[in-house]
Amino acid sequence: MTEYRAPTRDMAFTLQQVAGFSEMAKACGYEDATDDVVAAILEEAARFAGSVIAPTNASGDKTGVRLDADHNVVTPAGFRDAYQQYAQSGWASLQFDPAFGGQGLPFSLAIPVQEMWHAANMAWGLCPLLSQGAVEALSENASDALKQQLLPKMISGQWTGTMNLTEPQSGSDLSGIRTQARPDGDAYRIKGQKIYITWGEHDMAENIIHLVLARLPDAPEGVKGISLFAVPKYLPDPGGEPGERNDCHAVSLEHKLGIHASPTCVMSYGDNEGAIGYLVGEENRGLACMFTMMNNARLTVGLQGVSISERAYQQARDYTFERTQGTAPGEQGISPIIRHPDVRRMLMTMKSLTEAARGLAYTGCVAVDYANGRDLPEELQARFQRRADLLTPLVKGWCTEIAQEVTSLGIQCYGGMGFIEETGAAQHYRDARILPIYEGTNGIQALDLIGRKTVRNQGKAMAELIDDMRPFTGPAQSGSLFTAERQARFDQAVAFLEDATRTVLERGDDDRFTGAVAFNYLMLSATVTAGWLMLKAATTAAQSQPEQSSFASSKLVTTNFYIDHILPRCSAYLTALRSGDDAIMALPETEF
Amino acid sequence: MTEYRAPTRDMAFTLQQVAGFSEMAKACGYEDATDDVVAAILEEAARFAGSVIAPTNASGDKTGVRLDADHNVVTPAGFRDAYQQYAQSGWASLQFDPAFGGQGLPFSLAIPVQEMWHAANMAWGLCPLLSQGAVEALSENASDALKQQLLPKMISGQWTGTMNLTEPQSGSDLSGIRTQARPDGDAYRIKGQKIYITWGEHDMAENIIHLVLARLPDAPEGVKGISLFAVPKYLPDPGGEPGERNDCHAVSLEHKLGIHASPTCVMSYGDNEGAIGYLVGEENRGLACMFTMMNNARLTVGLQGVSISERAYQQARDYTFERTQGTAPGEQGISPIIRHPDVRRMLMTMKSLTEAARGLAYTGCVAVDYANGRDLPEELQARFQRRADLLTPLVKGWCTEIAQEVTSLGIQCYGGMGFIEETGAAQHYRDARILPIYEGTNGIQALDLIGRKTVRNQGKAMAELIDDMRPFTGPAQSGSLFTAERQARFDQAVAFLEDATRTVLERGDDDRFTGAVAFNYLMLSATVTAGWLMLKAATTAAQSQPEQSSFASSKLVTTNFYIDHILPRCSAYLTALRSGDDAIMALPETEF
Repeated sequence: MTEYRAPTRDMAFTLQQVAGFSEMAKACGYEDATDDVVAAILEEAARFAGSVIAPTNASGDKTGVRLDADHNVVTPAGFRDAYQQYAQSGWASLQFDPAFGGQGLPFSLAIPVQEMWHAANMAWGLCPLLSQGAVEALSENASDALKQQLLPKMISGQWTGTMNLTEPQSGSDLSGIRTQARPDGDAYRIKGQKIYITWGEHDMAENIIHLVLARLPDAPEGVKGISLFAVPKYLPDPGGEPGERNDCHAVSLEHKLGIHASPTCVMSYGDNEGAIGYLVGEENRGLACMFTMMNNARLTVGLQGVSISERAYQQARDYTFERTQGTAPGEQGISPIIRHPDVRRMLMTMKSLTEAARGLAYTGCVAVDYANGRDLPEELQARFQRRADLLTPLVKGWCTEIAQEVTSLGIQCYGGMGFIEETGAAQHYRDARILPIYEGTNGIQALDLIGRKTVRNQGKAMAELIDDMRPFTGPAQSGSLFTAERQARFDQAVAFLEDATRTVLERGDDDRFTGAVAFNYLMLSATVTAGWLMLKAATTAAQSQPEQSSFASSKLVTTNFYIDHILPRCSAYLTALRSGDDAIMALPETEF
Repeated sequence: MTEYRAPTRDMAFTLQQVAGFSEMAKACGYEDATDDVVAAILEEAARFAGSVIAPTNASGDKTGVRLDADHNVVTPAGFRDAYQQYAQSGWASLQFDPAFGGQGLPFSLAIPVQEMWHAANMAWGLCPLLSQGAVEALSENASDALKQQLLPKMISGQWTGTMNLTEPQSGSDLSGIRTQARPDGDAYRIKGQKIYITWGEHDMAENIIHLVLARLPDAPEGVKGISLFAVPKYLPDPGGEPGERNDCHAVSLEHKLGIHASPTCVMSYGDNEGAIGYLVGEENRGLACMFTMMNNARLTVGLQGVSISERAYQQARDYTFERTQGTAPGEQGISPIIRHPDVRRMLMTMKSLTEAARGLAYTGCVAVDYANGRDLPEELQARFQRRADLLTPLVKGWCTEIAQEVTSLGIQCYGGMGFIEETGAAQHYRDARILPIYEGTNGIQALDLIGRKTVRNQGKAMAELIDDMRPFTGPAQSGSLFTAERQARFDQAVAFLEDATRTVLERGDDDRFTGAVAFNYLMLSATVTAGWLMLKAATTAAQSQPEQSSFASSKLVTTNFYIDHILPRCSAYLTALRSGDDAIMALPETEF
């Protein structure tokens, strides 16, 4: 099976020159994040991902996880060891606060690194992903004492973290949460059941800190009565080490379509005396606290879409070089199938979507760093906060949608072999299918984009984005390849987005309309934005890397492909959007 | 889990009034296929599919098939019994020659019936599917003696059939086949290995007739040196009953992404003295003989796309009525999720794609009946042959592509539950993924469409199709719902197809170009044609069923949805097609 080799060349270029990392690092005072440091980190992460994590992927899928009689999760061979090496090498602490043992590097520098973990083994990578979210939520919201108690162990990776939101009756809509928290001295006793808890129990680390949404007695109904609690698996003893076992357990694991090696737990809190939990942030403000964590988690789930796409692409590419079948145009005798134009179409689709999604994801994450940059003018910081907010649903939604297409093409490149599990292409396809669902379904992302991120600010954030894209002209200096027709196609796509945004704002108070068009608006926005970033990549590569001309000319080809084959979808999204809710809502329920 | 209820109302309407079955039955002398007979057959098939076959689907997926130590395949509980009932009830013989025990009904009448089998259990349905293909190939090509020996048992369903083409080195390109056939008296001895043999071994019927492609000694190289042989699992004894065991065995089963209950066998022929086989048709004409079977099998694989889409739709629909979450626009309190516009968008996409695909598949199959109609004027018959040939890759390609989209949306409607295997939505998604691959990948279908079916006849078949679509106007009498804008959108889509066809014909001798644009040409052609059939359905329903007004008005809504949300994709296909092979082929191989 194909090994995973992180595309560090494209990652560094996309981060530094497309997403604007280098400028951000200067503007925000990250003096340590020099080009050399970035290169060294990426190379070392690539080595670790390729040699330690990636080899556990297929075997982990096959073995899966199991719950033993004592409610312990047993992870596949190699998982614990890979995790221990990961923590000991300092990978868990890259972007966190040096006050608690972090390395103080930008969030967005951890992004290509995390892309590698998820490409190497998405099921495994979910454990660090959730832990980082928990660290963020605690860092932003917990009391100093709680931070002192929990963060050093979590940032070092010795302890992991989880995110407990969903209950059987309460998923996309969290207002129905029923888990209860009863004050007990300085702490609380938690009772309730949570489902879909990723890495809710495992044997890779010595302790697990569960962040749990629950209701205090007499809390208001709905989302304004939810508080956030930190519930350790083992209560820290006076020395800060894992002590008494808390009253919380994994009671079953889900049997899933993919990510078989990631334990998705049903968690039971308080079967006996009640699980001890510590309040994080203010009472009844739990949802706001959890959102700190969810926004970055949404970006990193979008990133997982990039990861799994890259992995599927590498595997399909290698096979199309090996497999011979038929005679390609202009050839004699039997050809490697990569020479057949329709196979090449599939590979180019995979490659261009993956690179475009990488550009979009990294750009969203650099905006987060700007928004958190302390030395920036307030207005600029606010603008980047709007940008980060706007891009988050695009990254989560679009990068996970394209992952479906890319991993499916990955199977198709193999023909019949793609349907056989041993090949490994099917695993990527199965694993990828969770991405449009978790951390807020893509339908929820679309509603977030159109409601909170567009209508609520009267389209300000989107107008700023369009303003940035509008004057953009492609790499004309690259010669005739980037034709006027392609420039016109891009300009038209931007105009489509502007047109769609106007329509959305005009009818922004009509929930039926916005709900019906939201998904097409998300797909349109992201397809245009990612296209802009591809053009930016091609232009920048042509300008900055004359000595690396093969990289620059490849980027131009991939960009041209995107403009010829992906960007035209914008027309379909716009037409659907302009059709509104009419045909969507017209059928009586009895006629379904 | 949702049960399967065949949509007999839509099936009968689509067959009789959209695909033109009733006219065909009159023109081709099928006096027995009256409306009453059609209705009775569909109702009885629906009962059998829903009550006997469908309950085996989820359990069959879970159990899967296994090969025991004696090379016997053990099928899941209920499979053998369902098959025996199927054969005993006469379902296997509907469309076959009364001279060999068939019921002499039209091929296209068997199509909605088969849609039900595959919707009920696609893995199970593959056994009849392959058997029917084998019957067709033998009916068209075998000697009278061989027909007498094999067909009665196969048409009754007592024996099943298989299709043995692929070898490890030879899949899409069959020129590399190495299996050998050596004359031995009146028969031949076959030696070689075949892979991906669907239902190549099983316990549901008393005998299996394998149709095997192999090379005679001194046969020409390539596809012109391949002959077809019938290789029984048990050689018929003088009384015609299964006698001596032949030298052919299943040596292993594939571990697949989906259709777990369908044994995909590696078959070994002639491990000992050589498997006895009987020549079917002329020497070295095996591929032509097999194509008889492959064309109809391609149509029925397309039909499987309709089936699995319908099944996924029914299941998602039922869940969206049950599941409550959030407050839908204009409501108070918690709503069933079907009232949320984005969920409704997903359901409408599923419904309209499924109905459109049904129209396309049935229309293709009615064209086959016309083409085989004995009493028709030769010119008309030839025209229908061209139509059937043209529609075959559209049906196989498009109906299986939309099945990916529909089954994926089926998961998405469930949210997190969709990713859990117990829910059952994931099974449809996994099962569906084989459809764009087997019976000729969709890339091969696209090359067939653009090459043999378009360029080779100078676009005659496509021009005829466009001529049929061109003057079509929508159901204006249905009031303002079918707006002028929608009519214009349809007219434009037909113009796109005409434009694309002109481009294809102009560059028809450039293999790189045609290979690069073929897939978009297939998607464009099929999206327009299926849209035309939806318009035809809405118009016919409005005209013919005033008393059934809810059916007619639902069909109009679904058609409007198709025109608003699906047809706009044509613009993207055309733009990609007009971009040609430029960006597809520009990247040097070293840069992948």
